[in-house]
Amino acid sequence: MKKIKTSIIGASGYTGVELIRLLSAHPQVELTHLVSETYQQQELIEVFPHLAHLTHLKFVSLDLTQLAQQSDVVFLALPHTKAAAMAKELLQHNCKVIDLSADLRLNDGATYEQWYQHPAADSALLAQAVYGLAEIGYREQIAGASLIANPGCYPTATLLALAPLLNNKLLNLSAAPVIIDAKSGVSGAGRSLSLATHFCETSNNFSAYQVGGIHRHTPEIEQELGKLAGKELMVQFTPHLIPIPRGLMVTAYCPLNSSLSLKSIKQFYTEYYQDSYFVQLNNQERTGVKAVIGTNFCQISLHLDLRTNYLVVVSVIDNLLKGASGQAVQNMNLMYQLPETIGLTALAVYP
Amino acid sequence: MKKIKTSIIGASGYTGVELIRLLSAHPQVELTHLVSETYQQQELIEVFPHLAHLTHLKFVSLDLTQLAQQSDVVFLALPHTKAAAMAKELLQHNCKVIDLSADLRLNDGATYEQWYQHPAADSALLAQAVYGLAEIGYREQIAGASLIANPGCYPTATLLALAPLLNNKLLNLSAAPVIIDAKSGVSGAGRSLSLATHFCETSNNFSAYQVGGIHRHTPEIEQELGKLAGKELMVQFTPHLIPIPRGLMVTAYCPLNSSLSLKSIKQFYTEYYQDSYFVQLNNQERTGVKAVIGTNFCQISLHLDLRTNYLVVVSVIDNLLKGASGQAVQNMNLMYQLPETIGLTALAVYP
Amino acid sequence: MKKIKTSIIGASGYTGVELIRLLSAHPQVELTHLVSETYQQQELIEVFPHLAHLTHLKFVSLDLTQLAQQSDVVFLALPHTKAAAMAKELLQHNCKVIDLSADLRLNDGATYEQWYQHPAADSALLAQAVYGLAEIGYREQIAGASLIANPGCYPTATLLALAPLLNNKLLNLSAAPVIIDAKSGVSGAGRSLSLATHFCETSNNFSAYQVGGIHRHTPEIEQELGKLAGKELMVQFTPHLIPIPRGLMVTAYCPLNSSLSLKSIKQFYTEYYQDSYFVQLNNQERTGVKAVIGTNFCQISLHLDLRTNYLVVVSVIDNLLKGASGQAVQNMNLMYQLPETIGLTALAVYP
Amino acid sequence: MKKIKTSIIGASGYTGVELIRLLSAHPQVELTHLVSETYQQQELIEVFPHLAHLTHLKFVSLDLTQLAQQSDVVFLALPHTKAAAMAKELLQHNCKVIDLSADLRLNDGATYEQWYQHPAADSALLAQAVYGLAEIGYREQIAGASLIANPGCYPTATLLALAPLLNNKLLNLSAAPVIIDAKSGVSGAGRSLSLATHFCETSNNFSAYQVGGIHRHTPEIEQELGKLAGKELMVQFTPHLIPIPRGLMVTAYCPLNSSLSLKSIKQFYTEYYQDSYFVQLNNQERTGVKAVIGTNFCQISLHLDLRTNYLVVVSVIDNLLKGASGQAVQNMNLMYQLPETIGLTALAVYP
Repeated sequence: MKKIKTSIIGASGYTGVELIRLLSAHPQVELTHLVSETYQQQELIEVFPHLAHLTHLKFVSLDLTQLAQQSDVVFLALPHTKAAAMAKELLQHNCKVIDLSADLRLNDGATYEQWYQHPAADSALLAQAVYGLAEIGYREQIAGASLIANPGCYPTATLLALAPLLNNKLLNLSAAPVIIDAKSGVSGAGRSLSLATHFCETSNNFSAYQVGGIHRHTPEIEQELGKLAGKELMVQFTPHLIPIPRGLMVTAYCPLNSSLSLKSIKQFYTEYYQDSYFVQLNNQERTGVKAVIGTNFCQISLHLDLRTNYLVVVSVIDNLLKGASGQAVQNMNLMYQLPETIGLTALAVYP
Repeated sequence: MKKIKTSIIGASGYTGVELIRLLSAHPQVELTHLVSETYQQQELIEVFPHLAHLTHLKFVSLDLTQLAQQSDVVFLALPHTKAAAMAKELLQHNCKVIDLSADLRLNDGATYEQWYQHPAADSALLAQAVYGLAEIGYREQIAGASLIANPGCYPTATLLALAPLLNNKLLNLSAAPVIIDAKSGVSGAGRSLSLATHFCETSNNFSAYQVGGIHRHTPEIEQELGKLAGKELMVQFTPHLIPIPRGLMVTAYCPLNSSLSLKSIKQFYTEYYQDSYFVQLNNQERTGVKAVIGTNFCQISLHLDLRTNYLVVVSVIDNLLKGASGQAVQNMNLMYQLPETIGLTALAVYP
Repeated sequence: MKKIKTSIIGASGYTGVELIRLLSAHPQVELTHLVSETYQQQELIEVFPHLAHLTHLKFVSLDLTQLAQQSDVVFLALPHTKAAAMAKELLQHNCKVIDLSADLRLNDGATYEQWYQHPAADSALLAQAVYGLAEIGYREQIAGASLIANPGCYPTATLLALAPLLNNKLLNLSAAPVIIDAKSGVSGAGRSLSLATHFCETSNNFSAYQVGGIHRHTPEIEQELGKLAGKELMVQFTPHLIPIPRGLMVTAYCPLNSSLSLKSIKQFYTEYYQDSYFVQLNNQERTGVKAVIGTNFCQISLHLDLRTNYLVVVSVIDNLLKGASGQAVQNMNLMYQLPETIGLTALAVYP
Repeated sequence: MKKIKTSIIGASGYTGVELIRLLSAHPQVELTHLVSETYQQQELIEVFPHLAHLTHLKFVSLDLTQLAQQSDVVFLALPHTKAAAMAKELLQHNCKVIDLSADLRLNDGATYEQWYQHPAADSALLAQAVYGLAEIGYREQIAGASLIANPGCYPTATLLALAPLLNNKLLNLSAAPVIIDAKSGVSGAGRSLSLATHFCETSNNFSAYQVGGIHRHTPEIEQELGKLAGKELMVQFTPHLIPIPRGLMVTAYCPLNSSLSLKSIKQFYTEYYQDSYFVQLNNQERTGVKAVIGTNFCQISLHLDLRTNYLVVVSVIDNLLKGASGQAVQNMNLMYQLPETIGLTALAVYP
């Protein structure tokens, strides 16, 4: 097979450089344009010493026409509000596009504008974008797509935690909102500088932020859960910052609508994910993010409290892999009818 | 005033050594017996280099009669199941006792036996023990007590987060259990050795443990919340481990029973804690544990979600101070009619 | 005694805010002006949540005349090159000045200009400044000084490690340069933003920087060692960054000029530091920074290799306390004939 | 090619489980016996959740005869003093052996006995063992070997830092011992439990241990440097503990015997390592361990101080990979005439 000519726009942020790491080792990929305005014309190894053997690559500034001519697929690792217009133009040049920003995730432009305080992409573009979470029912659509809205990190872990419950109508949707208590490593905040990511402020700390239902992943989670439930629903989502560079956990509190055994619930999950290599059920007493850092896996553990009839679901991912760049490569594999797992089978470096 | 002759049994665990640090600097205290079977006859500075100037002190083995004769008050920093009998004997010797274990916290012996799988203390002893959380209504009882059941770390942060809501009947108790998503630093697991506290297993990790309502702090929280509510209630409590030595956060999800403004809710909290020096309301966007590490403070922030009518309360403490040894010293101060804050006013060393 | 009216210029950097923490608890100090251009007119607790009880204080912009009128002593926590002119003006207003920058540490202006690439302070000012390291012979001069050049963090740990050797002529100065392999926590780089202090770049990392004798603390160390030796000497100084917020270690490799027993060397150290409360000899197998974090102590351990006749000296401090703000307060105590240790006796919060 | 039947004895320690991770992904290897007495008969995923997809593997107890029959090569990841006898027996069964312990590294049995306080392996076995550091001249011997003494982590980083200097006679051996200031992540201490590896004791700490030339890697370093120099020499080696799970740095202080430019020194290094894929020269201002964590690379930076005529060499490796298990796999590749890099090309997961 001819290699897939692949470019990255926004190649020097954390998701961009993670795409470089994955794609440079992908047997079916040839990297062509690595666009970074910040580091244009610099060699990769001047900026990222861990890429020391990628001596043939350098960052370039954007020449959209040339990039489009020399790329089959383009990954957009740009800030929100910058990606939609770029995606539209690349599609017109017949490139496939995988957008890691939030610009194309919300189907309803008005909801986007309310949460992002910025004009939404036009509705035709939104309609064209496929939500790139293969495991919750999008696998076939992704395979036929030209434009992927790559999911957010918190939504990925949340949706994988809850999809089997909704698919099997196990959740009591009228009792109370599902509580999503989420925790992420610091790389989720990106490589740009701020006091919140200063080492001295973050180390030895653990903090809650954007508490009270104001984080922008809330509508993305509600949209996809609503589709799975067949009706609108609300979640109470709270993010926290863990003093580690990578790793993300969602602890989801789910009121059940009938008395089920833990065994039967586990069976629902096993069946739902039987064809999903990257989702692993975990039966251990402790569930930690460390087992999935550096990997594209999501590990899920299930805990039933018979006193309250709540199911507590714990799911863990690497926010930069299954939560961003790994998932994007998985989507590329599907778009090109490659094995879904190619280039993504690394295990965690432990401890 | 004559100094209070003070002893510690279990002086070389993390709560014990923290008591040494606090009490050695307390102007009204004279340390007499520092009991550690592990390190008996060793000087403190051989074991704990941070105590380098406490050259006059050494660890001793237990001589209960002598200790009781030479002590006005004894802190028990012993494992659960070991403390109740010791407390009883010391009371018979007319010592006051502050027990940092869980042995005397549950008023109902049967509940203790169910959760701890161990015979409860006799009911007279349980009846004598005062729950040592001054801020939620026990201040006067503590002042007159001979025996304190010092609260658990998770219950302390949880009860301080929720007491004003219950006291003012703001919580919708019939809607759903209150969700208590809690996170603690590793010192909560103590100084004894286990894989779970091995540096390599814990660093870069964040893990959920005892998920599904099985952690032993659940009945303690429910007991005290029930008293505040005037009726039984249930919580869904889940602990997590943060890869930091100290610090504890509770994120509590509280369904409200009417529409209230955030301003009015804050007013309830301000009034409830107006005489409580160690509780601080925090109006910042982020609430982190780092601001209270090394201190006896609890910081609380309040976040109202009008979409769901949930109040999300974030409270942070140092698990070894307000969550254990600092609170114990605060109780001692109250028992001896000293200013509640004496020896406990240190600010966090930041960053 | 009337309280010392004290101001801080540069009060919101890490050394400035550490001065606030120390001085707000100092029984002989009254804080008057806390100058921060960045946060002028903001209350402290808006910026620093760990200062939650210092509700009466706010940051102000600089009004030098008013500040000078209302201050007995002024701490300068300003960047290098900004402090000398300010010091001069404050002295003219009859304020005492403790300068935490490097501007006044090098006696020779030409050396300053060579290493800092900036004009040196005038020679009269340099001549007036007393090097503020009481333990190596400056205690009396400090007591009579109006202007203190507060030492650098690396020089403090280095000079305390080596002074007894030089004072007793034990070092073989002709054999080889003394090797100073130094390691510091990240707060040494300050609160300003840079990739080098981004959490994700720093955590899980340990890096060497300014290797090859190019760090600016080199001439400061050589100047003071030279005075102790009575002749010029060279050191090979290399700094490293530890992924912790605070703490600093120097490992010094010292060729001896005769065969001495470890016991006799320890005796030299004990005698040299017999009146220095803040220097502690440590006889443990391991010497770690953790035992002194949050304190003004320096712990030193001595290790003799009979094979090579090298003495390896390990010394640890908290870079923001004995390495900066704590030392500055110690100097203030001496300047006002107060007990040297007042306000500085806190032990490390451990673990 | 037929796959290499491979077993690991001591498969559940940190080097053992790292071998599992590497070898399970190695295209030419078939894992047969994973011996762990601790976890015999347990599935890997019960003990190590990061190995969740290796569902076909379990730990077994040792059946040496069967293991030998079913193995072409055996990795010994056993404690020192346990490996030599096992190696001997396996060789008699015609297995090849790669020993990760120190038992066979010292050519001189008497030196071993002096430093390890344990009887040395017999001299025939010692003579048969090839020191497994391909890059310093052993590549051909390794290719023909049946028994490999896999180097220690500190010696690997040290020897790679210094070999080009000695090979080109650039070092002034009479001036002073070479100073080796070394720093390692905590996994170097293994998975067994001790206070020194307790999270609370280690986090926020940085400590020196076995200071004064008493660490057992000293004679290993001196042996191999001596061979390169053609004469005996001494080093002053000091290890330190970094509060990170993986990563190791050596800062080596090297007196030069003539005036050389940095450029010419770099040229010597480039030539010496031109065929060594895993050694990378780094020209960046900072050299950190993070760029090589999770990889088999060694990065080296060179810094010349013209004032002292010292070359300061900084070298970084992952202590469990190039410092142990990765190097062992590299040696296996060479023994089987496979490309040296197969299974070892992963880049660091950064940040």
